[in-house]
Amino acid sequence: MTGLPVRPELVGEVPYGAPQLDVPYLLNVNENPYPPSDAVAAEIATAVAAAVKTMNRYPERDAVALRADLAAYLGHGLTADQVWAANGSNEVMLHVLMAFGGPGRSVLSFAPTYSMYPEYARDTHTAWVTFPRRDDFTIDPVAAVDAIHDRQPDVIFVASPNNPTGTAVPSETLRAIATAATGVVVVDEAYHEFARTGTPSALGLLPEFPRLAITRTMSKAFAFAGGRVGYLAASREFVDALRVVRLPYHLSAITQTVARVALAHADELLAAVDRLRANRDDLAAWLADSGLQVADSDANFVLFGRFADRQAVWQALLDEGVLIRVVGPEGWLRVSAGTDEEMAAFKAALDQVLKTEEGRLQ
Amino acid sequence: MTGLPVRPELVGEVPYGAPQLDVPYLLNVNENPYPPSDAVAAEIATAVAAAVKTMNRYPERDAVALRADLAAYLGHGLTADQVWAANGSNEVMLHVLMAFGGPGRSVLSFAPTYSMYPEYARDTHTAWVTFPRRDDFTIDPVAAVDAIHDRQPDVIFVASPNNPTGTAVPSETLRAIATAATGVVVVDEAYHEFARTGTPSALGLLPEFPRLAITRTMSKAFAFAGGRVGYLAASREFVDALRVVRLPYHLSAITQTVARVALAHADELLAAVDRLRANRDDLAAWLADSGLQVADSDANFVLFGRFADRQAVWQALLDEGVLIRVVGPEGWLRVSAGTDEEMAAFKAALDQVLKTEEGRLQ
Repeated sequence: MTGLPVRPELVGEVPYGAPQLDVPYLLNVNENPYPPSDAVAAEIATAVAAAVKTMNRYPERDAVALRADLAAYLGHGLTADQVWAANGSNEVMLHVLMAFGGPGRSVLSFAPTYSMYPEYARDTHTAWVTFPRRDDFTIDPVAAVDAIHDRQPDVIFVASPNNPTGTAVPSETLRAIATAATGVVVVDEAYHEFARTGTPSALGLLPEFPRLAITRTMSKAFAFAGGRVGYLAASREFVDALRVVRLPYHLSAITQTVARVALAHADELLAAVDRLRANRDDLAAWLADSGLQVADSDANFVLFGRFADRQAVWQALLDEGVLIRVVGPEGWLRVSAGTDEEMAAFKAALDQVLKTEEGRLQ
Repeated sequence: MTGLPVRPELVGEVPYGAPQLDVPYLLNVNENPYPPSDAVAAEIATAVAAAVKTMNRYPERDAVALRADLAAYLGHGLTADQVWAANGSNEVMLHVLMAFGGPGRSVLSFAPTYSMYPEYARDTHTAWVTFPRRDDFTIDPVAAVDAIHDRQPDVIFVASPNNPTGTAVPSETLRAIATAATGVVVVDEAYHEFARTGTPSALGLLPEFPRLAITRTMSKAFAFAGGRVGYLAASREFVDALRVVRLPYHLSAITQTVARVALAHADELLAAVDRLRANRDDLAAWLADSGLQVADSDANFVLFGRFADRQAVWQALLDEGVLIRVVGPEGWLRVSAGTDEEMAAFKAALDQVLKTEEGRLQ
């Protein structure tokens, strides 16, 4: 960028994102390995063919029908005006920081956590503040409340289940955080559908906390990463604040159409979630049996380690056609839960690596 | 938003956008009235059906194939790495201000101009500065250069053809602005394809000015407003700066797919442009013959006036099923060029209004 007057904080920065490599086993970005059925794909194509006939017109700007469908999916008595939708939950988060963050304001989260959060903060000129999780990646509610009183953040992000650790946050901890907060609190439930049975959603806390919002995504449980739809539930007033900062017509007519067909087939699309949860639990057990440290996971991935040279392990797996992710604290790696075949390939490859010099532990 | 800690500058603000009303004649947002042919619609549906089969995977993050197609469409020897694409040119503009604007920086434009520009500035905390156009809505190049030297803006937006006035900016004026600028200059050519024969694109200036960028959209000439694809051409370094601030996976797999099919049929989709230019010229002549002031237009709309009470004229037309736009300086109204039937309906309705008290001129 030499010679161009880019903002000083961006000089030398590179675009965010895991490597997109064409290898047989993609276990690096927590995608759902199951594509939609031929029946759902055909229905999507039919719906798009109809939508294309008015493609020359701008899309419905408030995406009310899509938001109503999302509200119905979430339940909890939510209505369209309490739900927001955008091109991925990352755009939802950007809207939150455009409305409630910005210059002179701060966003606090609990580290280690999702590596995009500091980018949202940077791109909206919001100060990024972290408070550490415990060694087991849980949040100490007493210490968290102290930190909130001390730092007075304008926005708090709590990922539950957390990425990259998989850690779900108990309701009592979320309640303590929301009670202590003087700003807004966003619980990022991108991976909620993969949580173990009995793990409550923060949606149940919405009536108690008017400054609380919960974000979700269709990328993971709905196997809809290519469609780019994230959404948020909160009070109507919260959603109205996001509507002020959104770009007009941010959701294309096609995106709205395709997402609505997917939501109409939620039962079918979500059927794979149980299989992935079982494979996640099996994967975690296998990793522990292999002598590795494993973070307790309620998501569709597992963080494991700790390796003396995680980059070497990552490369050795890639050499076997298995792509996972170098992310989280030093020494750890993250692998997505996949199909039986993907899990077998990963296990075989890691088994090999653990017998070599590259696979030595800390 | 009472009780919610939204940013102070957003309190009392409402979401941007013209009213979306269901009336017979939609001439308010400069849409192209011609939908894609059945053949193109069918091809889009087929392409989407194929893309949906990998919908569970994230889209190609850099949209390289789409950017290559856009570069080929633009010509001028451009390549994919000199072209950027996003969900509408408004997202492209947001990326520009995230990279080159922001707190402590300013963006200058020439008023009256596109009413979204100050929103982009507000949402990126960039100071919004305007310099007036002449009474005929052209830019005085000498005064513009003085203003640039005086204000030293970090970013300059020049819409050409301008919205809502339709005014194309001569190359020599653009060259003077780009020469005087110490920051980046963005020429917004959303309506370029509608310009009269012989109106050069600023694309020809790119080799001379490394801090120059040109934005375009598929919404207008390509009749693709519902698909939401805007794009930009500049140096590779300029595009790389935008890649740093974009959200990962900002363009869905479906958006990339549909846009590529549309571009493959550019000849067919652009065929309607000539008809719209003819109707625009006829419309301007008819308005002038009706005793109105008419801004010289190179876009697919015409600004006309000046009415004593433009809101009353707008409402009277709406009562006849014709929706146009209240925008621009006091007393003026903007109407989009449409089909012969739409133009006849507009003329008949305005003819009536001009005979009434509501239609009186300033």
